[in-house]
Amino acid sequence: AFKKPTDKELSHDFLWRIHQQVPAKGEIGFFNRSHYEDVLVVKVHKLVAQSVIEERYKQINDFEALLRQNGTHIIKIHLNISKDYQLGRLKRRLERPEKWWKFNPGDLEERKKWSEYMQSYLQVFENCSSTSAPWYLVPSENRRFRTLVLSELILRKLKEMDPCYPEANFNIDDYPVDSLK
Amino acid sequence: AFKKPTDKELSHDFLWRIHQQVPAKGEIGFFNRSHYEDVLVVKVHKLVAQSVIEERYKQINDFEALLRQNGTHIIKIHLNISKDYQLGRLKRRLERPEKWWKFNPGDLEERKKWSEYMQSYLQVFENCSSTSAPWYLVPSENRRFRTLVLSELILRKLKEMDPCYPEANFNIDDYPVDSLK
Repeated sequence: AFKKPTDKELSHDFLWRIHQQVPAKGEIGFFNRSHYEDVLVVKVHKLVAQSVIEERYKQINDFEALLRQNGTHIIKIHLNISKDYQLGRLKRRLERPEKWWKFNPGDLEERKKWSEYMQSYLQVFENCSSTSAPWYLVPSENRRFRTLVLSELILRKLKEMDPCYPEANFNIDDYPVDSLK
Repeated sequence: AFKKPTDKELSHDFLWRIHQQVPAKGEIGFFNRSHYEDVLVVKVHKLVAQSVIEERYKQINDFEALLRQNGTHIIKIHLNISKDYQLGRLKRRLERPEKWWKFNPGDLEERKKWSEYMQSYLQVFENCSSTSAPWYLVPSENRRFRTLVLSELILRKLKEMDPCYPEANFNIDDYPVDSLK
């Protein structure tokens, strides 16, 4: 899960901390938030100039192409909920003491910028959906449906990749089973 | 999973790469191999002097005490199998092509040093079992039994730690549920 960048992370380009966390060959990684925060929250809060945001769309596409060309497949999923549904979720956090720790008053401020966020998401979907790394927009208010769609996306990708066992790095004829002791 | 140390890792003390991987507060981490390799395989192959091994027992105890005193609980588990059982496992890898990639001819060489390994393990258990970070020796030829014991160890530890939700970092009275919009 990527959080607010640290001072050290901010002293590098925005893809630096992301690149360090990408899964190695043979691994699967799940990112909760990602480099897209740098063209979403950063854009909404105008933390960088719009021209920098435009540059980042291309930088993101190039970065994802690099990963893809080196064997890493990317599934990008936007879990979509309505503004009303979010309100219900926030209220529920206040109603149950064991959920208080999840409640962040700052979320109420961000909520006021809902339409700016939607606008920024649209820009992302338009600028950063390549054939090999498309965005999937998944209706997520019904959790069972959401989970079913995610599972299907992952399953379909795995079938497409058709992973196989690594090659043996020895000559099988050199090791007759009965010779082992 | 810790593998053979890289050149960079070898240019640091043996606990450097381990320390980087310890779970943060609120997290659980599972280590497959650990800093104990540096007093096991390293001892059997005499890669460092015996005096260095003796120093490492204390360094390990001090390191684990540091973690414990900062809130990290440690469960150390040795999955015990017999030399005969290992032979069966190695043979099975040769008999099934989809297991070939797991077969490492080097394992046959290591197997010849079985008694040296056992001796080194005994030294570890004697020197590095503190009250707060004891070693558990778990008979592991029966996988169901093994998994049951591991689950019980983890469950017991979690009950002892009795984790609780983080504190809310806001004043609940400032946010009446009905004021949210």
